[in-house]
Amino acid sequence: MAQIRLALAQLNVTVGDIAGNAEAIQRWARHAADRGAHVVAFPETALTGYPVEDLALRSSFVEASRTAVEELAGKLAAAGLGNLVVVCGYLDRAEDGYERTGRPKGSPQNAAAVIHRGRIVARAVKHHLPNYGVFDEFRYFVPGDSLQVVTVHGVDIAVTICEDLWQEGGPVRATRAAGAGLLLTINASPYELAKDDDRLNLVTRRAREAMCPLAYVNMVGGQDELVFDGDSLVVDETGTVLTRAPQFTEGLLTVDLDLAATTRGADEYAGIRVERTVVSDTPLPAYEASPSGEAPRLDEEAEIYTAIVTGLRDYVHKNGYESVVLGLSGGIDSALAATIACDALGPENVYGVSNPSRISSEHSREDAADLAARTGLNYRVIPIEPMVSAFADNIELTGIAQENLQARIRGMIWMGIANQEGHLTIAAGNKSELAVGYSTMYGDAVGAFAPLKDVPKSRVWALARWRNQAALDLGETPPIPENSITKEPSAELRPGQRDTDSLPPYDLLDQILEDYVEEDAGAADIVAAGFDPELVERIIRMVDAAEFKRRQYPPGPKITFKAFGRDRRLPITNGWREAVIAGHEPHAPLRTAPPGEGPQA
Amino acid sequence: MAQIRLALAQLNVTVGDIAGNAEAIQRWARHAADRGAHVVAFPETALTGYPVEDLALRSSFVEASRTAVEELAGKLAAAGLGNLVVVCGYLDRAEDGYERTGRPKGSPQNAAAVIHRGRIVARAVKHHLPNYGVFDEFRYFVPGDSLQVVTVHGVDIAVTICEDLWQEGGPVRATRAAGAGLLLTINASPYELAKDDDRLNLVTRRAREAMCPLAYVNMVGGQDELVFDGDSLVVDETGTVLTRAPQFTEGLLTVDLDLAATTRGADEYAGIRVERTVVSDTPLPAYEASPSGEAPRLDEEAEIYTAIVTGLRDYVHKNGYESVVLGLSGGIDSALAATIACDALGPENVYGVSNPSRISSEHSREDAADLAARTGLNYRVIPIEPMVSAFADNIELTGIAQENLQARIRGMIWMGIANQEGHLTIAAGNKSELAVGYSTMYGDAVGAFAPLKDVPKSRVWALARWRNQAALDLGETPPIPENSITKEPSAELRPGQRDTDSLPPYDLLDQILEDYVEEDAGAADIVAAGFDPELVERIIRMVDAAEFKRRQYPPGPKITFKAFGRDRRLPITNGWREAVIAGHEPHAPLRTAPPGEGPQA
Repeated sequence: MAQIRLALAQLNVTVGDIAGNAEAIQRWARHAADRGAHVVAFPETALTGYPVEDLALRSSFVEASRTAVEELAGKLAAAGLGNLVVVCGYLDRAEDGYERTGRPKGSPQNAAAVIHRGRIVARAVKHHLPNYGVFDEFRYFVPGDSLQVVTVHGVDIAVTICEDLWQEGGPVRATRAAGAGLLLTINASPYELAKDDDRLNLVTRRAREAMCPLAYVNMVGGQDELVFDGDSLVVDETGTVLTRAPQFTEGLLTVDLDLAATTRGADEYAGIRVERTVVSDTPLPAYEASPSGEAPRLDEEAEIYTAIVTGLRDYVHKNGYESVVLGLSGGIDSALAATIACDALGPENVYGVSNPSRISSEHSREDAADLAARTGLNYRVIPIEPMVSAFADNIELTGIAQENLQARIRGMIWMGIANQEGHLTIAAGNKSELAVGYSTMYGDAVGAFAPLKDVPKSRVWALARWRNQAALDLGETPPIPENSITKEPSAELRPGQRDTDSLPPYDLLDQILEDYVEEDAGAADIVAAGFDPELVERIIRMVDAAEFKRRQYPPGPKITFKAFGRDRRLPITNGWREAVIAGHEPHAPLRTAPPGEGPQA
Repeated sequence: MAQIRLALAQLNVTVGDIAGNAEAIQRWARHAADRGAHVVAFPETALTGYPVEDLALRSSFVEASRTAVEELAGKLAAAGLGNLVVVCGYLDRAEDGYERTGRPKGSPQNAAAVIHRGRIVARAVKHHLPNYGVFDEFRYFVPGDSLQVVTVHGVDIAVTICEDLWQEGGPVRATRAAGAGLLLTINASPYELAKDDDRLNLVTRRAREAMCPLAYVNMVGGQDELVFDGDSLVVDETGTVLTRAPQFTEGLLTVDLDLAATTRGADEYAGIRVERTVVSDTPLPAYEASPSGEAPRLDEEAEIYTAIVTGLRDYVHKNGYESVVLGLSGGIDSALAATIACDALGPENVYGVSNPSRISSEHSREDAADLAARTGLNYRVIPIEPMVSAFADNIELTGIAQENLQARIRGMIWMGIANQEGHLTIAAGNKSELAVGYSTMYGDAVGAFAPLKDVPKSRVWALARWRNQAALDLGETPPIPENSITKEPSAELRPGQRDTDSLPPYDLLDQILEDYVEEDAGAADIVAAGFDPELVERIIRMVDAAEFKRRQYPPGPKITFKAFGRDRRLPITNGWREAVIAGHEPHAPLRTAPPGEGPQA
């Protein structure tokens, strides 16, 4: 057996900011060395951020990554960190010069550098390129074909990258065949609800398959629509957790491991070459291991809430902003969105605007003011009646056009304030509304970011209750007015309007949406599950027709399995009619996708 | 040798409208039979439309396609068309039941059915799945591994699908090894500038490689951001064109071929199984061949203009609309967009709105009215001053916020009219503006479709001149006022404003954008090509920071190699700083991507 102290650096990096990310890597490498680590691992593409998307096809970008990783090696050595083995994700390119139609231009590769004494001593390249869900790696990358095994203090460490762990066979099996003492996998694995459970199951299974302990380091923080939840961990060869990092928090996880000493196994497995590099084949003198902890898991609502706070904070800050503006209607969506913004940015950086109309109820104004008082956010009231009148005097609008006008005047006011004062605008819409198109384009849908975009309405209420309870548990004032939680939802765009005029109750709507959107269930299956056929047809038609609106909606943090946006990509012009019920003509012409037409709210 | 009359049906189908597409296929099959064809070929995924995107992952959709192709076979036979061999693209699925992480759910396949006498006698599956540019086929499809060869009247016809022709080796080489007498390839190949030249070169080369004539049938019409240009053609084994269909026009191309009679070649080539089906191995009695024509090519401006007209018309009609509304500023962009809309939909379906402000020049109003008179579109004038005043009385906005307000009031008026009267809104912005973010979100950027989205400003002028000349050539009134073409561009959002206050002259801007956007050239390369370093840096920074605005811009027809949208996918939160010039700190913090902030116009 041979001892080693391993550090996993759960970093929050920014896509494209190679210089800034390199500085962070140096800083955390120093921290790892200070804690006595022999090896420190950084996430997949830590140097470039993830996902780089088509930046990978820009040769100046890939060359910058290649240069930066070489410079990083030099700087680490110059800073006295040369003896620390640093494993770091970056972009490289295949050197074979092979170009053909469809092969990503410049042959970029998703790689890991093993750095020691100022040099890159080994380069691992990702084999399996995920191209599903939020991933498009076949578009950008060329796969690797070898397994890198690096011997450090007498331990053979196999280095793999993210998807290589999720796919059956391949590098994990090669790790076993190669007789490695540790499987180290670097990741950029985005959050979704309960993903930590999936991840733990996977890591456990793969450790058993590889027949050695497995160390898993993940990114943390928000990048556009993705949130990385960290959750780095190390398990032993039976899958027992040795240490586990907190979710959504940047930090360094260190663990002392006592591992099988090097045993030269196979040099090839199922077409994968095993390439070996020896940094040091002498085990360390025995030392006393320090204990490692296991961070508690967040419960479901806490996990979602923290993911949204993380996603919003990083989106605002990484885009160079400090503050946000949003409309406060007195309703639950804007109340929750504002509370999240206060938690993410501080209430002094949140600007709430109440825009009452003649139709607005008294409680709407009171509830908005109450929220502002409870949270301490900046608050102002700008009634929209004068602008509504100015439009009404010059252009005749009725019905939905008139309802949309009010929402749009509000949107213009928020955007005016944002442009004037330098805030980003937040859209407070939830996933249920977005699914059925219950929003006004260029009205309530304006904004740079939509924190609740992937949160169904039922869950909005649950998160609000959870947040208030969390405040009570800490002896603080609950931020969200009880009345905003309990009152009946209304867009208040015409007198007496209620959401249920246009939609079924949200608990029912959300069940149908769960089946249709998350599960891709067909209309017939949903009806067979016991839902009213006419309702199913109506909801599905609304969902299918709202694709244009969803495309133009601001980005928001992915929470569920199938977030609108990167996870779910559908045509706008779409003649498909899923809904087929008895007594209805299955292929009757449907006026699909009313782009530019904004029903309600 | 054996004779055969082949028909290529260059169809305009709609994604998802399986029933409607099946009806069209029957109608055109009848037409082919009436013209004496023995074989008729329809495009790739003719039954489902292209691209189906994530509809492919919905099992009810794939099953509907599978059912519909069986029903189609029955209906063709019932209609007396059983003896006609029909080759038709549709979606199928792999039957192996093999599911794993990352494999498209349900294992959908991009397939071609060969239909004869009420049955599907052969199924070809696409081998090469393009996953670059506008394509994402690794996301949706599972590849095929056999080459289908169908013997019809003594001729061995190899059937392949689109990308199988673009990739080296594979099915084309297998066609040669199999000794086929004809290579028939069905396609959904989107338009881009001069693609017809690339296509002709490719088809010529592949015919020589396959050592037999090659028939190429393509889709036509608009689908969201894609436009299919048709351009179906047949070449002989030397690559000489035998017949060629017009661009952008639905129709049937028929040709009499005298082909090598069946010679059984290899049953396998480089891992590709050759599967043979005999419909009829007896050559036809000799008959007199009819001559086939070759449609003239459109010149460059005509080709682009027709692509845009096609894309706009289909987007409007396939989404269930008849009419559009747009703002008329008197400038060149809105004048060209309105003219295109009149050509696409008829002037009676085009609603132009002039929204002068106090700042608007007299010529702006006159030029807008002149355009309306020349084209015959519906015209109204709604000054924005009363609304501007109503906002000014209630919220203090200055500078860019005030400029954006004016643009947004206009956008609200257009959207109000669209919602009230049932039109789609058109955004008139061009590619140069979109590249550098010179537009107002929720202002001039509102709309369901943006016909000039992929047209650089220099080309906007060229298209306007071309369109006016085309009118003169026909003895018609040129639609676009000469003054709109010749006057200096201005957004007229503050007194005396000119585009060149914020931007370099468009001919210079467009050259830099060509290098940076189309060619992915690095800043250093562009500077090395002779452009001013400070200007290059400024332009690149503007382009990089405008990604959020581009994401929220309406869709528009792809014209160039790298259209914003499906072709070019970049992060919003993006710390990459391409621009590096002497005397500048290369990694200075950049306030990236000002989402929600709308500079000018």
